[in-house]
Amino acid sequence: MTEKDIEAMQKLFNPGNVAVIGATASSERVGYNLLDSLIEGGYKGKIYPVHPSLKEILGIPVYPSIRDIPDRVDLALVALNRRDTVEVLERCGKLGVKGAVSLAGGFRETGEEGRALEKRIVEIAEKYALKIVGPNTLGIMNLEANLNASFYPVRLKKGNVSLISQSGGIGFSIIQKCQDEGVGLNKFIGAGNRTVLEIADYLEFLAGDAGTRVIGVFLEGVENARRLVRAAGRVTRKKPVVIYKVGHSDDVNKATLTHTGSMAGSYKLFRDIFKQHGVLLAGSVAELVAACKALSLCQLPAGGRLGLYTYTAGPAIVALDGLAGREISIPELSPGTVRKIKAILGEDLPVILKNPIDTGGLGTRSGTYGLLVEAALNDPNFDLLATFCCPHKNWRNPTSELIEAYKKSGKPLLSCYISTVKGVEADREILQQAGIPLYKSPEETAWGIAALVHYSRGVECLS
Amino acid sequence: MTEKDIEAMQKLFNPGNVAVIGATASSERVGYNLLDSLIEGGYKGKIYPVHPSLKEILGIPVYPSIRDIPDRVDLALVALNRRDTVEVLERCGKLGVKGAVSLAGGFRETGEEGRALEKRIVEIAEKYALKIVGPNTLGIMNLEANLNASFYPVRLKKGNVSLISQSGGIGFSIIQKCQDEGVGLNKFIGAGNRTVLEIADYLEFLAGDAGTRVIGVFLEGVENARRLVRAAGRVTRKKPVVIYKVGHSDDVNKATLTHTGSMAGSYKLFRDIFKQHGVLLAGSVAELVAACKALSLCQLPAGGRLGLYTYTAGPAIVALDGLAGREISIPELSPGTVRKIKAILGEDLPVILKNPIDTGGLGTRSGTYGLLVEAALNDPNFDLLATFCCPHKNWRNPTSELIEAYKKSGKPLLSCYISTVKGVEADREILQQAGIPLYKSPEETAWGIAALVHYSRGVECLS
Repeated sequence: MTEKDIEAMQKLFNPGNVAVIGATASSERVGYNLLDSLIEGGYKGKIYPVHPSLKEILGIPVYPSIRDIPDRVDLALVALNRRDTVEVLERCGKLGVKGAVSLAGGFRETGEEGRALEKRIVEIAEKYALKIVGPNTLGIMNLEANLNASFYPVRLKKGNVSLISQSGGIGFSIIQKCQDEGVGLNKFIGAGNRTVLEIADYLEFLAGDAGTRVIGVFLEGVENARRLVRAAGRVTRKKPVVIYKVGHSDDVNKATLTHTGSMAGSYKLFRDIFKQHGVLLAGSVAELVAACKALSLCQLPAGGRLGLYTYTAGPAIVALDGLAGREISIPELSPGTVRKIKAILGEDLPVILKNPIDTGGLGTRSGTYGLLVEAALNDPNFDLLATFCCPHKNWRNPTSELIEAYKKSGKPLLSCYISTVKGVEADREILQQAGIPLYKSPEETAWGIAALVHYSRGVECLS
Repeated sequence: MTEKDIEAMQKLFNPGNVAVIGATASSERVGYNLLDSLIEGGYKGKIYPVHPSLKEILGIPVYPSIRDIPDRVDLALVALNRRDTVEVLERCGKLGVKGAVSLAGGFRETGEEGRALEKRIVEIAEKYALKIVGPNTLGIMNLEANLNASFYPVRLKKGNVSLISQSGGIGFSIIQKCQDEGVGLNKFIGAGNRTVLEIADYLEFLAGDAGTRVIGVFLEGVENARRLVRAAGRVTRKKPVVIYKVGHSDDVNKATLTHTGSMAGSYKLFRDIFKQHGVLLAGSVAELVAACKALSLCQLPAGGRLGLYTYTAGPAIVALDGLAGREISIPELSPGTVRKIKAILGEDLPVILKNPIDTGGLGTRSGTYGLLVEAALNDPNFDLLATFCCPHKNWRNPTSELIEAYKKSGKPLLSCYISTVKGVEADREILQQAGIPLYKSPEETAWGIAALVHYSRGVECLS
């Protein structure tokens, strides 16, 4: 992308004012909900709803046409049927609008007429240098600018993870899982049919975006796979890119073609090529979010030597199981750490000191927990440490101990509190604020670990 | 197992009174928390704490020795070190106690001395016909009897799913995930070292247990794999058994040996043999719980022909992707259903009518949703239906429509509301009460579907 392209995309995410074309008073319709989202998101710029006859929607004055708006329009959100959409995009171009989000479906994914209309969108974009998101998209968000330009009026936690999703529904799945995991978002992009702007364009834009530290992508299929893979590989040298791609079966290929108009293609081919380019592939929404969480909070470890500390063996074993085949090493405890642990717990221990370090019931006691984690974290054999515990009605959670040990060491520390979503909430905020990702299941902890080690390797190989 | 064995195990889960040997006043210790759990769980029988000098713990009178308890003891919970544990179990046997849960670790998983002590436990069990759970266990629960005989004082949702876990920590993971998913529990068994009672025994007991409809198992490894596989295969003809087994790597084999004293063994071998016996293998806690949820709420479908109904394509595609390789068929819509949908939505639709049925924005409108789901559910080509939607601030959730359509048809219906855990809670209770499992991610929905179809096949083949 040229500098001019990037500037135009910045306008898309940081518009001074927004027109909602196809705004309505019916709360079931997309046009109403775009407006509601802008308000709910706390957007501070000017909002211009457009409707042929209504005077006011949600307390905001309405204009009969985009031509009647007495101001420059930076971003036009277009919620009209497919034919009117094309007309209005042309008008936007003529009026010098720089960016548009086109929400309606009904284009190439549905057949010949849709394909013809989509061709016209490409022509309009080129003729007027109009950046068009979609069509057939949930919309976009920039939480840094309090901009929710989607038809889902939600308030979300702010952070440094940005998301690109070819599907609105799965985009929303990722957003909701991020909320459950306390992962703050920066930008969300519903890519939809990618008629003008492709996933590769969004990746390149986010690569230079100061607010974005990690990029998560949901992919069905793309036409220009080579361009996507190269872009992802380039971007991943600057910041981590995690991609969740569907397409394991022929049924899925059929379904994606009539969704966002692309075949899913060979999953294995995608996987191997992405791997070569240092991009991490996730196998589910949960894995994508677990990986983004670790990458958004932790510095990369110096290497892939993992220590595990627990007082309940099962979760550490499940985490190890999840790490099989990930080229992560589980080195022995150094003799110095064994000595330190014996100095804390006594010589005659009813447990075997190895890695995973399992101190059993002894490890739950307050007063010793912090010392044990500190000893483990400082083992020279480990590049990063994961700890596991089960919150308990009568035992204090070791939250402050974990933070103290982490602050002293600076090595990446991930923690797993086996819990319900609600049970873990308060401690998670405190730990994650301090730079320790907190998971509630050992499987997700393993995904976080794998992501950190993957990128520590990638940075080594690629730079 | 003989009838006498089963009777003895029933006593274990339905004791008239319980002794807590090793009860203490320190809230950090297991002995205190066993007592607290019995109280917190609402246990109605008599509780006899045993401690050499204390007079009262948590308001309950304490006895200096089990010999001083002026009553028959049905169940002894033993929270002592490994040497004292063996002594006390012997004493329990002599006094005619019928069941014991032995909590402390430090047995064969730690070496020679532990192995010798464990041998003595076997001798004691045989000599006195004493049913011993563990050692090295979190404990057991029977929610039907308000019995929480574990050292985690928690209150849980009651239901018809029973769990057997070789690991306390993972057992607790499964329990907590069940809470997040609104899955009610019946019995929980922390199997631990399985010195006397093996997983196969628990399976056989639960097969005949009226309160248990579905059995979930977490497995590290077992010595007598043949017996386990045969038992699981036998039990699965009566009620579904879902097993989550770790052991994909050598690291895990090393770790399980020093955890509950067993090698994990070859994962692939286990998988293939379980499959032959009709047992479903789950790959994670999340999959285990998703499968148990569907099996606990739904009747088995007549076959494996799945319909999907959505207004947002991505989640249906992800679900399809998760079903790849599961031998589930995705048949075309019948002409009659196409006619019904067109009668509801009109002839000139901007979507292609196929399976997954994706009605796009049209499908979100109240008034039509229920009719569309009903049409899909009644398609003669489908044995079961899954629906997907994204709850929205301004749109009513289609909860009542789903229930109505389901009641009219009786075919298994699973639903996915893309949501946070909190966002889905209220509707989930209503839907699940009505027999419709509700998931918050399409991956978990796919696991629920796969479990139902798996057992519909299994029942066919095995019976």
